[in-house]
Amino acid sequence: MATQDNLSEYLIAPDLSRRGLSRAVDGIDQDGKKSVLSVVEERPLTIFLNAQEIVTAMTIGDYPEYLALGFLRNQGMLPDDADVTGISYDEELETVVVRTATQTSFEDKLKKKTRTSGCAVGTVFGDMMEGLEEVHLPASPVKTSWLYALAAKINRTPSLYLDVGAIHGTVLCREDRPLVYMEDVGRHNAVDKIAGWMLSEQISAADKILYTTGRLTSEMVIKTAMMGIPVLASRSGFTAWGVEIAQQVGLTLIGRMRGKRFVCLSGDERLLRDADPALVDEESQRSRRKGGRA
Amino acid sequence: MATQDNLSEYLIAPDLSRRGLSRAVDGIDQDGKKSVLSVVEERPLTIFLNAQEIVTAMTIGDYPEYLALGFLRNQGMLPDDADVTGISYDEELETVVVRTATQTSFEDKLKKKTRTSGCAVGTVFGDMMEGLEEVHLPASPVKTSWLYALAAKINRTPSLYLDVGAIHGTVLCREDRPLVYMEDVGRHNAVDKIAGWMLSEQISAADKILYTTGRLTSEMVIKTAMMGIPVLASRSGFTAWGVEIAQQVGLTLIGRMRGKRFVCLSGDERLLRDADPALVDEESQRSRRKGGRA
Repeated sequence: MATQDNLSEYLIAPDLSRRGLSRAVDGIDQDGKKSVLSVVEERPLTIFLNAQEIVTAMTIGDYPEYLALGFLRNQGMLPDDADVTGISYDEELETVVVRTATQTSFEDKLKKKTRTSGCAVGTVFGDMMEGLEEVHLPASPVKTSWLYALAAKINRTPSLYLDVGAIHGTVLCREDRPLVYMEDVGRHNAVDKIAGWMLSEQISAADKILYTTGRLTSEMVIKTAMMGIPVLASRSGFTAWGVEIAQQVGLTLIGRMRGKRFVCLSGDERLLRDADPALVDEESQRSRRKGGRA
Repeated sequence: MATQDNLSEYLIAPDLSRRGLSRAVDGIDQDGKKSVLSVVEERPLTIFLNAQEIVTAMTIGDYPEYLALGFLRNQGMLPDDADVTGISYDEELETVVVRTATQTSFEDKLKKKTRTSGCAVGTVFGDMMEGLEEVHLPASPVKTSWLYALAAKINRTPSLYLDVGAIHGTVLCREDRPLVYMEDVGRHNAVDKIAGWMLSEQISAADKILYTTGRLTSEMVIKTAMMGIPVLASRSGFTAWGVEIAQQVGLTLIGRMRGKRFVCLSGDERLLRDADPALVDEESQRSRRKGGRA
């Protein structure tokens, strides 16, 4: 069970008292019995970079400023030296505008490309892979005792994931301490919110570990690498391309982390196996709950 | 266990012998033991509508023509009367081009909007909600015996989901018979492939049921409604907005369908409870496997 000790380690933990993240929905079960279910919210948020409309994300709605900032950064639309002069969120219009001192080169690029090929989606994708070639992740050692401690703490932290399900969680960690726990309907949003927080607070990435409940797809691996975080761990599975990219950029990749079990797909030479798996508890039923999040 | 009887019901079942859907990846487990894992593939596929580049999807790579056609249709980019003159897939270039006899009105719209707001992603989203207002789903009755039979058959069908994990499955069904079982890294792709197949084969939607392993988000509900399918069932959870849209368009929505349990979120008045839940088997461990798919 969660204790104050657990929660006090976090800089940002899931805030279950926050309004608007879930809603009561009527359901009728297999026996015809009515019940009121607590169900996760999902709402559109349109992200602008200056006057340029970029994307409409589906999100639970918390931390829209971090989401916008992190999304733009992870898509390579905000260079390292971008001078962000303001971020304004309009709840009623469901928009968030990130403003920079000067027009970014991305906006030029976007305009040029849209003139020739019409849509920016493919462009965005192409640019992400491009930026990846310049990524050099530090070869940080990772103790398996940290990974086990993180999984145990995160699995016991009160969250929408445990409470309502149908949601993904991503946690920024340092050694055995979870720091920032973000949740969202799309796992990419949870990661983008963490990226936005790191950028706002000027947090260094080199000594961090990213833990996620979601699958390790190419998108997740690319985002983590773009953020400069050298370690990515998940309780879920992975795709072949996700593994390949992790190996290319030197990201330590850990999948299927449940109880004492895990599998290292990339960077095993940086793992310090200081914990005896035989002494690690298997997961409680509770932390395995809400399979409905898939 | 899967039997020939199960498989013979399908028009398209997962083809585990197909090359290129998974790949052997080396992993090292918690005890330092090396193993070779079979891991699902993920590759980019850029979809064109005539000369217009639309999107790059991440996909396992099977049925690219159905994926392209279904995506364009579900995004409202191909009107009912669109005359598709050809679909060409280039494996090396990882592109698929859908050609129509005349330029579609969508291309005009896209060009106009991109000139003003730069990117089509938000546009596409807006258009989807727009098209939804015209959707009128038939009030088809649904027997719970069909739903239980479908879940049991689908859970026992050999699939990448059972074999490799980290993937979503979506199955087009009629009464208690599963017809077309598509899988992909993104659940939206699996649905789009089914939509493409239905369009190619001119299959009517009014008597169909869509079953998915993934969450019932707004995107999934909108796609199902756009396809004209009146029933959507899932073993996973749901979002509040997904439920709201289902109620608006008259879609029968069933979530958390596992063993004898399910919850009906929309259209319960169309459910015929002809099966006694007490007589339904709980799920075997095997069909619950591969939680790594989240």
